[in-house]
Order: sequence, then structure tokens, then C-alpha cells
Amino acid sequence: MSGGTLIIGAAGMIGRKLVERLSGPGKGRGLTLHDVVPFESTHKAIVSDLSTPGEAEKLIAARPELIFHLAAVVSGEAEADFDKGYRVNLDGTRYLFEAIRKVGNDYRPRVVFTSSIAVFGAPFPEAIDDEFLNAPLTSYGTQKAIGELLLSDYSRRGFFDGIGIRLPTICVRPGKPNKAASGFFSGIIREPLAGQEAVLPVSESVRHWFASPRAAVGFLVHAAELDTAKLGTRRNLSMPGVCATVGDEIEALRKVAGDQAAKLIRRAPDPLIERIVSGWPQNFDPGRALALGFRADSSFEEIIRIHLQDELQRSAPPPPARA
Amino acid sequence: MSGGTLIIGAAGMIGRKLVERLSGPGKGRGLTLHDVVPFESTHKAIVSDLSTPGEAEKLIAARPELIFHLAAVVSGEAEADFDKGYRVNLDGTRYLFEAIRKVGNDYRPRVVFTSSIAVFGAPFPEAIDDEFLNAPLTSYGTQKAIGELLLSDYSRRGFFDGIGIRLPTICVRPGKPNKAASGFFSGIIREPLAGQEAVLPVSESVRHWFASPRAAVGFLVHAAELDTAKLGTRRNLSMPGVCATVGDEIEALRKVAGDQAAKLIRRAPDPLIERIVSGWPQNFDPGRALALGFRADSSFEEIIRIHLQDELQRSAPPPPARA
Repeated sequence: MSGGTLIIGAAGMIGRKLVERLSGPGKGRGLTLHDVVPFESTHKAIVSDLSTPGEAEKLIAARPELIFHLAAVVSGEAEADFDKGYRVNLDGTRYLFEAIRKVGNDYRPRVVFTSSIAVFGAPFPEAIDDEFLNAPLTSYGTQKAIGELLLSDYSRRGFFDGIGIRLPTICVRPGKPNKAASGFFSGIIREPLAGQEAVLPVSESVRHWFASPRAAVGFLVHAAELDTAKLGTRRNLSMPGVCATVGDEIEALRKVAGDQAAKLIRRAPDPLIERIVSGWPQNFDPGRALALGFRADSSFEEIIRIHLQDELQRSAPPPPARA
Repeated sequence: MSGGTLIIGAAGMIGRKLVERLSGPGKGRGLTLHDVVPFESTHKAIVSDLSTPGEAEKLIAARPELIFHLAAVVSGEAEADFDKGYRVNLDGTRYLFEAIRKVGNDYRPRVVFTSSIAVFGAPFPEAIDDEFLNAPLTSYGTQKAIGELLLSDYSRRGFFDGIGIRLPTICVRPGKPNKAASGFFSGIIREPLAGQEAVLPVSESVRHWFASPRAAVGFLVHAAELDTAKLGTRRNLSMPGVCATVGDEIEALRKVAGDQAAKLIRRAPDPLIERIVSGWPQNFDPGRALALGFRADSSFEEIIRIHLQDELQRSAPPPPARA
């Protein structure tokens, strides 16, 4: 018996939205969800640490034909805890790939791996094209770049049918503000839409590359269904996104939610965050992904409207607060 | 007590030439040589398997201030034996890097890592520049590319002071013909210079990227002495080389050793080898390495003359055999 879909890292923000998307009416394939933290679900759920030897084998015991590998220690934590980052992001990924390889017997599932634009490091060209080198400037980016290399080699050898997708920075991230250096990109939209003040630690000229959570889930589903013969030997793709400055973000917020919302953004320059962000990619020329049918949000305004629809269940902003 | 130089992979062809270069009169630093196969030496010698957990720690017990990591399972073997390639080329390298990191206490040796142009895979631009992506088409190239990423990250974190150098195909390789797909590049020079027939399995238009063993040792020594502050965050460099077609090789052979030598090359086209070689890099634009003072051979003729001097202890070819 084999088949079904396994989602590793199912309790994360993107994981939960992917589960929702794959659980709709008429979706027949059995879902198995995995995470290292306990979570509630109506689907079959497994809680374990993928970076513990032997756990990967258990995860694929049912021979899922489609595996989403979304699990990772995020950038800040991988930088702060060197051992944990390599253990989870490198060893965990390699254990999964090895477990699949060792099944043999024509077991060759589709593996969709979420990589990141953190595989790229400054200095950058004006737009990062599909042939630009992976020279990460963080341990997280290094671990993702290694995952990409392994995915390509295991796919080339026929052990599985892999595709790696480099997600843009997800915006607007729902939930509470966090301490990630990138948090303000979402915060300056999310908080004002909720009538709260947001802090902006960088200048309005800072440029970055964005996708909504809905677009990110769309990338994952498209990657799962794509004819990978079209990929050739290069199985890792920079995803399309919206290139916007912080100024563009604020202008889009003003258009969608009015000047009152934009006024809730308080400037508080932070040289440390300015410096960190200056090493991040700003713009891409994702020709291959576009040719393969991956689709980004159409504008930063659309990114804001998606947040309103998907998180706040409304299409218009709240009426502006009057003094 | 600390100091000295450790050469891992010292019994290989480049390793032996490096040892010779570093053993000259007045060279004061203590050499420790390591290989997995037993070898003869007047220096301190260690024979062990770096890919066995715990061995890396023993290798650096004397805290060498300079480490050359040349050891690797070569391309053909890493492709034929998947487990061995990853164990030696990936795990062995990572064990070494981890052993150094775990010493701590301001131990921060220079690590010179031999990578390879096999980190690149077709399709290629006209010349591979310093920003072209690593998209290897072999497990060996994948393992070297991962080594490069680890070296960069460990250096960035301050665990050691690393530099990775991507060697061109070494030509003329001394010794007997081997079964490597690239063997003919050396064979069509080496065998005729020894008065023997050589087989050419590809067309004369095949283009490739070469360095003599002497140039390769020069790269290693230069990498050991370089001010790595000049490298910035990108610590892996494509080495300069000589771009030559097989036709160029034969013409150079004719100039150095006469028509009689060139006539010892027998054409025997092999479609399999043609296909393998067509996926290999042909030409580079190694601007960074040149700016940092790495120097290639001046021509393919010089590559042949170096072989005559270093391997055959002569500056002229033997007198042509007469019928």
C-alpha cells in the first residue's frame, strides 16, 4: 500500500495554510501531517524530531507519493544556535532524503522542498537571475543551499523527483510581531490594519522581494503538480514575487486603508537592522519559474487585500478612528 | 604547543608534489602528512580514515596552523559508489571542520580546500565567471559544492580561516593511463612523449580548462599565504587555467616534440565519452583569482614543457624514432 501526501512542518504558518488548501471538498488523497511541536488536526498527525536518526524512516513508512518538506529552524535561530541549525536544517533534510533513497524498489515520490532567497548573499546584481551564484551570508542560507544541492543530486540519481522553491519573504505574516529582523516588513501593514502602531526601523528606500502566504501556498501546490521533466537538471527555482520598497508598502497601505492607517507607522531608525537588511536580496528576474507557470501576487496592494481577506475576513479596512 | 602544517590527502599526486615543494631547504615549519592509504615519508605520517568519527580530532591534536585538505574520492568513484562518495567527500570534510570548530580557544587555522570545476554543470555561458551558479551534474561536484558552502560558513563564523580553490583539470597527469573519462586529455600528450601510442576518443574541437601539476601546487601555496581579508565573504575561487581544444593540445605537442609524436595519437571516437565530456566546463573568466595573484601556465606548450622537466627530467623530447 502506498500513496497519499506527507507534509513535514505542517504546524508552521505556511504548513497550516497548505493543509487548509489541500483539505477542501473533493480532495481525495490522504494527508499525513508532521511537526516537531504538538498540534491539533483532523488528519493523521505525527509529532517527532526529524533530526533524530530513525524518525525519517517512520515518516515515510506509508510510502507517500508526495512529500512537502517545509520544516526548518528559521534564520535567526540557526544563526544563534549553530548546532541546532545544522542538525535540523541539514541533518534532518539529509535523513529524509536518505530514508527515501533506501526504500528503493521503484519508490520515487515527488519531494517539494522549501528553500529561501537566503541562499543568495550580497553583493547583488540589479536583479538576481536564474544563473546567479548561491553565496549565502547566514548559516540558515548555507543549510538551505546544501539542501538544494542534495535535492538536485538525489533527483538526478533517480532516488526521488525533487523540486526546490526559493520563497520570497512572506508578507503579510499573520499573528503577533516577532523579533525577526525582517518582522517590520509585515508589521508596518499588519498593525495599522488592526488599528495599532507599528515601528519602522529602516528607511523607506529599502527594497525587498515579497509574496503573500496565499501565493506561497500556490507555489507549493504548483510545484507538486508540475511536469518536472521541464526542469531539466536544475531543480531549484527562485519564485516570482513583488519587488517593493518600504515606501511602496506604505503607499499601498494608504491606498487600501487610508491615510489614518499609514499614520500609525512610527519611524525609529535602527542601524543594526539597517545593516542586516542591506545584505538581503532586493530584486529578482525569475524567468524560469514564470515560464514554468509559477504566479506571484500582482502588486503590493494585492498582498494587503489578501491579508484582509484571509486573516481578517474582510475586503475593506475598518473605518478610520476619529479623534 | 601549536603550529606546523597538516596535509590531508598527502599521498595523492598533487599531495606528493606539494610535500616536495614545502620540504625544500630552509622550510622550517613541521609537516604532518595524512592519507587513508599507507605511504612512505621522512615527515611525520598518519594513516587513518578521516570519514571515521573521531579521527579528525586526532589529526588536529597538534593544532596545525595551516591545513591543506586535498583528500577526496574522485569523480568516477563517487558516481559509482554513492555511499562512499558522500561519506568521504561530505562527512569527512564536515568532521574536519567540526573538529576545528570544537577546539575553540582562539584556534583558527588557515584551511586550504581543493574544490573542483566539477561544481559547475551545463548549460554554460561562453566563459564561466565568478558569479556563475554551482549546479553540478555529478555526486562528486555536489559534494565539493557542499564543502565550499560549509567552508564559507565556518569561515564567516570565525571557526577557521578558509579558502577553497577550484582546480582546473590537471594536465599532464604523470603515471599510467587510468579509466577516468578525462584521462585522454593527459594521455594524448604523456604517451606520445614516451614514444607510445595514445587513444583519442573525442573530436579535436572539444574544449577544456587545464593547469599543470606545478601550477596547481602554486595555487595551493599561494592560497596558504594569501591575505584572506581580500576575499571578503566569498571564499571559493575558480582558478585560472589554460583554455585549449584537443586540437590545440595536439598542435602544442607537435611544436614541442615534432610531428612524429603527434602521429602516435590514434583517433577512436567513443560516443559515451563525447557525451560525458560535453557536460564539462570549457572556459572560465577567473577575474577574482587573477586579481588575487593566482597564476596559471602561460600556454599549453608550457604545460607540456613542465611535464618534460618535472616528470621526465629533460627539456627536450627524445629523438624521433625513425622507421
